[in-house]
Amino acid sequence: MPNASRARFTALFDPRSVAVIGATPEPQKVGYSLMRNLLAGKPREIFPVTVSQTSVLGKRAYRSVLDIESPVDLALIAVRADIVPHVLTECGKKRVPFAVIISAGFKESGGAGIQLEEQIRAIAKKYKISLLGPNCLGVMNGRADLNGSFAADKPMPGDIAFVSQSGALGSALLDWATTHGVGFSKFVSLGNEAGLTELDFLDYLATDTESNAVLIYLEHVTDGATFMALAGRLAKKKPVVLIKAGRSARGRQAVASHTGSLAPEDAVFTAACRASGIIVVESLRELFNLARLFRMGIRQPLRRLAVLTNGGGPSVIAADLIDSSPSLELAELSETTKQKLRAVLPPMASVGNPVDIIGDGGASRYEAALGILINEKNVDAIMVMLTPQMMTETEKTAELLVSYAKKKPLLPVFMGGAAIQKGVARLEHRGLGNFWFPDDVVSALEALALGRAEGPAGPGYKKSAPASAPTTHAKRPVRLMDYSKTEKLLRRYGIRLDGAFVRSPKELPAAGKKLGKGPLAMKIVSPDVVHKTDAGGVVLNIADASAAAGAWEHIIHSVKKSYPKARVNGMVLQRMRNGKEVIIGMKRDPVFGPAIIFGLGGIFVEAMKDTALRVAPVNAKSANEMVREIKGFPLLKGLRGERPVNIAALEKLAVSLSRLALANPKISEIDLNPVIATAKEAVVVDARVILNS
Amino acid sequence: MPNASRARFTALFDPRSVAVIGATPEPQKVGYSLMRNLLAGKPREIFPVTVSQTSVLGKRAYRSVLDIESPVDLALIAVRADIVPHVLTECGKKRVPFAVIISAGFKESGGAGIQLEEQIRAIAKKYKISLLGPNCLGVMNGRADLNGSFAADKPMPGDIAFVSQSGALGSALLDWATTHGVGFSKFVSLGNEAGLTELDFLDYLATDTESNAVLIYLEHVTDGATFMALAGRLAKKKPVVLIKAGRSARGRQAVASHTGSLAPEDAVFTAACRASGIIVVESLRELFNLARLFRMGIRQPLRRLAVLTNGGGPSVIAADLIDSSPSLELAELSETTKQKLRAVLPPMASVGNPVDIIGDGGASRYEAALGILINEKNVDAIMVMLTPQMMTETEKTAELLVSYAKKKPLLPVFMGGAAIQKGVARLEHRGLGNFWFPDDVVSALEALALGRAEGPAGPGYKKSAPASAPTTHAKRPVRLMDYSKTEKLLRRYGIRLDGAFVRSPKELPAAGKKLGKGPLAMKIVSPDVVHKTDAGGVVLNIADASAAAGAWEHIIHSVKKSYPKARVNGMVLQRMRNGKEVIIGMKRDPVFGPAIIFGLGGIFVEAMKDTALRVAPVNAKSANEMVREIKGFPLLKGLRGERPVNIAALEKLAVSLSRLALANPKISEIDLNPVIATAKEAVVVDARVILNS
Repeated sequence: MPNASRARFTALFDPRSVAVIGATPEPQKVGYSLMRNLLAGKPREIFPVTVSQTSVLGKRAYRSVLDIESPVDLALIAVRADIVPHVLTECGKKRVPFAVIISAGFKESGGAGIQLEEQIRAIAKKYKISLLGPNCLGVMNGRADLNGSFAADKPMPGDIAFVSQSGALGSALLDWATTHGVGFSKFVSLGNEAGLTELDFLDYLATDTESNAVLIYLEHVTDGATFMALAGRLAKKKPVVLIKAGRSARGRQAVASHTGSLAPEDAVFTAACRASGIIVVESLRELFNLARLFRMGIRQPLRRLAVLTNGGGPSVIAADLIDSSPSLELAELSETTKQKLRAVLPPMASVGNPVDIIGDGGASRYEAALGILINEKNVDAIMVMLTPQMMTETEKTAELLVSYAKKKPLLPVFMGGAAIQKGVARLEHRGLGNFWFPDDVVSALEALALGRAEGPAGPGYKKSAPASAPTTHAKRPVRLMDYSKTEKLLRRYGIRLDGAFVRSPKELPAAGKKLGKGPLAMKIVSPDVVHKTDAGGVVLNIADASAAAGAWEHIIHSVKKSYPKARVNGMVLQRMRNGKEVIIGMKRDPVFGPAIIFGLGGIFVEAMKDTALRVAPVNAKSANEMVREIKGFPLLKGLRGERPVNIAALEKLAVSLSRLALANPKISEIDLNPVIATAKEAVVVDARVILNS
Repeated sequence: MPNASRARFTALFDPRSVAVIGATPEPQKVGYSLMRNLLAGKPREIFPVTVSQTSVLGKRAYRSVLDIESPVDLALIAVRADIVPHVLTECGKKRVPFAVIISAGFKESGGAGIQLEEQIRAIAKKYKISLLGPNCLGVMNGRADLNGSFAADKPMPGDIAFVSQSGALGSALLDWATTHGVGFSKFVSLGNEAGLTELDFLDYLATDTESNAVLIYLEHVTDGATFMALAGRLAKKKPVVLIKAGRSARGRQAVASHTGSLAPEDAVFTAACRASGIIVVESLRELFNLARLFRMGIRQPLRRLAVLTNGGGPSVIAADLIDSSPSLELAELSETTKQKLRAVLPPMASVGNPVDIIGDGGASRYEAALGILINEKNVDAIMVMLTPQMMTETEKTAELLVSYAKKKPLLPVFMGGAAIQKGVARLEHRGLGNFWFPDDVVSALEALALGRAEGPAGPGYKKSAPASAPTTHAKRPVRLMDYSKTEKLLRRYGIRLDGAFVRSPKELPAAGKKLGKGPLAMKIVSPDVVHKTDAGGVVLNIADASAAAGAWEHIIHSVKKSYPKARVNGMVLQRMRNGKEVIIGMKRDPVFGPAIIFGLGGIFVEAMKDTALRVAPVNAKSANEMVREIKGFPLLKGLRGERPVNIAALEKLAVSLSRLALANPKISEIDLNPVIATAKEAVVVDARVILNS
């Protein structure tokens, strides 16, 4: 839960006075870098605090933060971990509102570190100190010229915020960004999150007018439901790009071992983010490229692209990429535009899209074409490609682009090495930037279009009940709910389990009568038989109730071979049905709570992984989307004149299952499998409920 | 067809004497650049030929190539297009074996250019001149220090060959490569291919000992079958990476308009390349990254990766990417290795994989870890990640990597900007290189693994009969082969069309008897009814032959509503069958000839695009692969104890269809759809044969 007031953040991001606890004149130490970085920024009151020195970098040093006469807005702490509780207590007594603990040696190092972290958490709570860290890189504000970190670079001013659970990635991004002219508004390294978490900054950034776009690196999420609510609010106001580490099994292991936190399942996490309108990327390159795009002021999807080039080959590759993209298209140029282009370009030039001014074109030819293309209404943005050829004027062309970019979004792709370097530098330092390959432009624009198109799902997303106990992934015996309890539970949420439960063969005729005409199926009900089919616990195509007694015998006989001691509660008798096989399931994520999964049965789920997933609550709207999202949807809608199945009935099942899961936190998994969907109804043929063990 | 002898290529790639026809002292002209570039290389006899100057760049100029006393190996021609026939004739008379025509203004500019190109083609043939171009950048040989092009850069010596149908891409790649320390053996710009084509170079490079890897950029293919044969031979010897422009509809349009050539369908082309063992990439970034990999001497797949890093976050992202890759894996480090690492690294370091030496580690800590990891048998290559942090020693670490890379393949990923630039420069100029993001390493290694794993398909690929007339993509009425001809044609190739053809209701009882028990289906046979089902031309579930007469009436009645004038040849009566629906089809590509397509029916082909494709001839081996390649294969193999369908029968159909298509070039398309696959057989229920119109 967000736990720092808005006003407090000013103490973090633009403090009037900063105490550096652990300041030192030894250049290889963190405390030295902190002092140097702070002094290199906007003038503020800087108070070095050190036990042994009388001055640090020309500033009078204090023995304790308590010795400082003036008020202190922010304390940066870089002393040995075991001394941190002492200095933090002093900060509390001094009424320092905000502290950033850079020091490592806490939870991440295990053992005594875990206790130390608990200790500082308690101190911060007692004295109402807002705490960032420990074990973090620090904080920066490009707009307020504050580098409260030990990173060598300081960010250029910009309007992008970066929030990271990894300090190393922060350093790399910052170095890259500064080199390529990308600036930041806020730059936050979260560290161990003993105090403030990613949630506080999601909350803060929603109303931070200096940040127009947000980049986030996450390894774990503190609270799934709150995350979705806050991220959704933030993403409604500005683009939010998120890269999550620990998507794969090995990645999750790595994260768990170094943060000690449970990571959500990747599919659940991604579904949650997408539903909140967040742009999820899987690669660092994509993250960096989106930063480049934001730097150019591009924050809304641009779909219809023109390509302007001095070389055929690369532009055809670009055209291919754009044409293959689901969210972009090659703009259709109007006849007027083509005629105007023809008038100013040499006869060999191509005036379609791509517009190819050919290899011997210099800056003036680019300008002639740009002057026309920026007025073409069918074009949202122009990808300007340049390859180094004999007459190419890279720097002059770069200057041109800088000025034309004010009229229409331009996406420069200068390809090459040394020959174009000066032009690229000019682009980067004049507010544009360069994408080295057309692939980069296309993937960045596509990510933006996708993320912003789906948009936040809105009020459907309320706080979900947190899992009472996290699901673990180790193999242990599952606790299966028995048939009659399952049947009752489902019924309470309006889900009817098909068939008649029969305790003994004597009840068969009555059940048969109830089920009506047509062949029947029988399956065993036993707490000891998990894989019914494999154990011979299922008989299909039983002609009628009179043949059922034989089937009963047969089942008992078969099952006893594999499970000699199986307790038999009875059998379920069902009518055989024709229809489309569907699976609707629930799996409780340790962080995000119940996830509802929908897919076609058999091959579609197993081999094709063709499923849709939503974090509960699933409402009518999201159930509707889910069902239509799977690739196999046309099968449900009916192929070649076939009648569609009752899709509303399937949606209703998903919504009911979501309600059930939210209200019953002790259930870790439910499978309605198979559900037979017919034109009339959705019949739940079998259900399996697994309880937390 | 390859049309230049091996010996001749020496005249191109390492000529003793070169005539520059169109040499000039005017620096902005191509003829000047050619002279300058040649003179900057290894000493050779260079003869400027010019009508008006007496000397060019200090060399005595000739009026005609005929005036040169010594023999001339290579003529570089850069004069106005309309003068080219004249100077080429002179080259012929002078017995110059090889000519490169740089000049533009031929086929690519249409009109008179087309005739001019025919003219020079005839001259070259008459005088047996091997011709490169026209409209090309030229030729380079990094090993022999030859820059026979007008590109500003000259390539560094290396062992990568580049063959390109785009000059602009060549310039960009060359500039990039030279800046990043990537050298080339041969560098060929193909231009309009009036003489030599890509095929000649595929042929030549297979035995060129100076080239250990080949990069190709193609917009069109001269001859599909020969391409596959030569590419297959080349790819057996060295990795071949190919990027093709014009994959999308718009891209193909662009290529067609500027080369006037027919482009193969992308799916067919890709299938052909993969079958030949070629690594097909879709993005320029991937092409460039593979060049980087080859530069490092990595030409064989490396699967088991260790990640060594000084920062947690980026390495978790790398671990995710590796773990999610189908062809790579995070190596399992042995206990011994972990113990050794524990002994040399600080307690907070992580010794799993990724191995994290943590942020305060300098070069010596990288060295300690590397020294251990290079001896770990489970590791094929080490991705060495570096982020700029306080104690990071980029240059020293770069030096280290250069020396350790001799012992085990290292893949450096230094992430950042200015802070790491010097380290990156050191890597690049000492024979390694840097991948800026882990994504780049993973995608390059994956492409290599994929391409090399599939490998050339071997002798199954023979020359296919070229299409007698290329299939066009405009909508025109299709010419459908009639039922009895189709039935006969298929039978000739061992494909039996199911059911009995019945000319009149009187024949129904006999036909019913022949077909045996079980419900029947009836469908109309009419040259005028293309969409039988929609027109009511199909009746299913006819109880027996006696009910068939009614069905006949019903069909006639229904069809006449939509097609009042439909000619009715009769009906086909079939037994209804249960089984898996499959589609086997053929489509003739204008360049590669018949492509055979296999997929599951209905939704699988339509919505899931789950098909396998092979260029004919399809033999037993490739048919076997095809069937197993589709995602839906488990359905055919049988789910949950179901019996598998007769897969061999499906394979046989694909092979037969391939034979049929090769022998009947006038057929443009065949659909066997549906084919019902059962445990016993594969029944062709319907077939549609389309003829070239």
